[in-house]
Amino acid sequence: MWQLYQFPLCPFSRKVRLMLGEKGIAHELVRENPWANRDEFLDLNPAGQTPVLVEESKGLVLIDSNAICEYFEETVDRAPMLAGGAAARAEVRRLVAWFDERLYGDVVKPMMDERMKKRLVSRDAPDTRILREAMKTANAHLDYIDYLLDHRRWLGGPVLSLADLTAAAHLSVADYLGGIDWRGHKQTTDWYSVMKSRPSFRTLLGERMEVIVPPTHYDKVDFF
Amino acid sequence: MWQLYQFPLCPFSRKVRLMLGEKGIAHELVRENPWANRDEFLDLNPAGQTPVLVEESKGLVLIDSNAICEYFEETVDRAPMLAGGAAARAEVRRLVAWFDERLYGDVVKPMMDERMKKRLVSRDAPDTRILREAMKTANAHLDYIDYLLDHRRWLGGPVLSLADLTAAAHLSVADYLGGIDWRGHKQTTDWYSVMKSRPSFRTLLGERMEVIVPPTHYDKVDFF
Repeated sequence: MWQLYQFPLCPFSRKVRLMLGEKGIAHELVRENPWANRDEFLDLNPAGQTPVLVEESKGLVLIDSNAICEYFEETVDRAPMLAGGAAARAEVRRLVAWFDERLYGDVVKPMMDERMKKRLVSRDAPDTRILREAMKTANAHLDYIDYLLDHRRWLGGPVLSLADLTAAAHLSVADYLGGIDWRGHKQTTDWYSVMKSRPSFRTLLGERMEVIVPPTHYDKVDFF
Repeated sequence: MWQLYQFPLCPFSRKVRLMLGEKGIAHELVRENPWANRDEFLDLNPAGQTPVLVEESKGLVLIDSNAICEYFEETVDRAPMLAGGAAARAEVRRLVAWFDERLYGDVVKPMMDERMKKRLVSRDAPDTRILREAMKTANAHLDYIDYLLDHRRWLGGPVLSLADLTAAAHLSVADYLGGIDWRGHKQTTDWYSVMKSRPSFRTLLGERMEVIVPPTHYDKVDFF
């Protein structure tokens, strides 16, 4: 069986978990704390990052969330997440890169650093200036998602795609850490409610990280 | 015809130019300075980043270097850059992500900021501490490329792939900025000599950025 080395609040691990869930791929979770720099994990992935997916009986080690998602898109027909022609697929991949670089870099990573890593690892107080800036940028990202949903049924086009899984994965981590103010973003909250109600997402939202407690709306489909 | 909005020292633009060259796709270059934040360019790509590839007659706008490369891999059979089965393709994509995130983030970006952006835009002196750190990390990256080439003919496996184009694109920008010390990396220099002699790369290495002059070995296949 596939073994997924992952961390509960790693958005890239969450993206892969949503992909495996939608594709119906059985797997077991192996918890890996990215800041531990465990030698055995670095041997597996010199980049030292989650997620890594291993199938020992086949001698397969898959690294990098997008390489993993493309692998299952190529090998499993069920639930296509890069549907359509080459141009439609390019648009989905553009958005995946946008969320992985900008939504992650400007919003999710600073929130993880300030609200999770400082709490669990260095035990410093969070920098409120950085958090305020990240929450302001989060709002701009929700505006952009509202705009996409004004023109399309799903984020990447007419059907559910890897763009939806990627955005939901990142937003869910920021939301766990109390960093998302959903008010005034009707299109995005409606879309996120639908995402939350998918079986692949519900399991994930039911889990809790030690020490850090999410806001009460976090796993509620209707936000209340 | 395709129009490529690009910047001469943008490694992601260079990756796409190498891909278009290998695939034999006719295109014209449109110079876009990323720090200019031109309104018309932001309308084209809200991320404000090069490269962007436009085919007006077909109404196509392709954004993000990997989305662009995957598009041409899917639509043009010539010169496959993601050859082999799903696992081989996953390994190439892993390396592309590694070079795009780590080689770029730890080496190329700080060199561009210190040696190009500060010179052309803010006119500050470069921070020698940051440059020293980036050059040290560059050396570790060359060690890893040496290691890969000890085990494989090309970086991603037995055949030329997007991993080679990506690594060469990033290294060429760092090299233009005088940030690579090639001594002691025989495997990497041999591989880079072969890359440099490819027609797709030679045109690119022949161009010069205004004000900034590369070291004399920069476009020489034998480094001398």
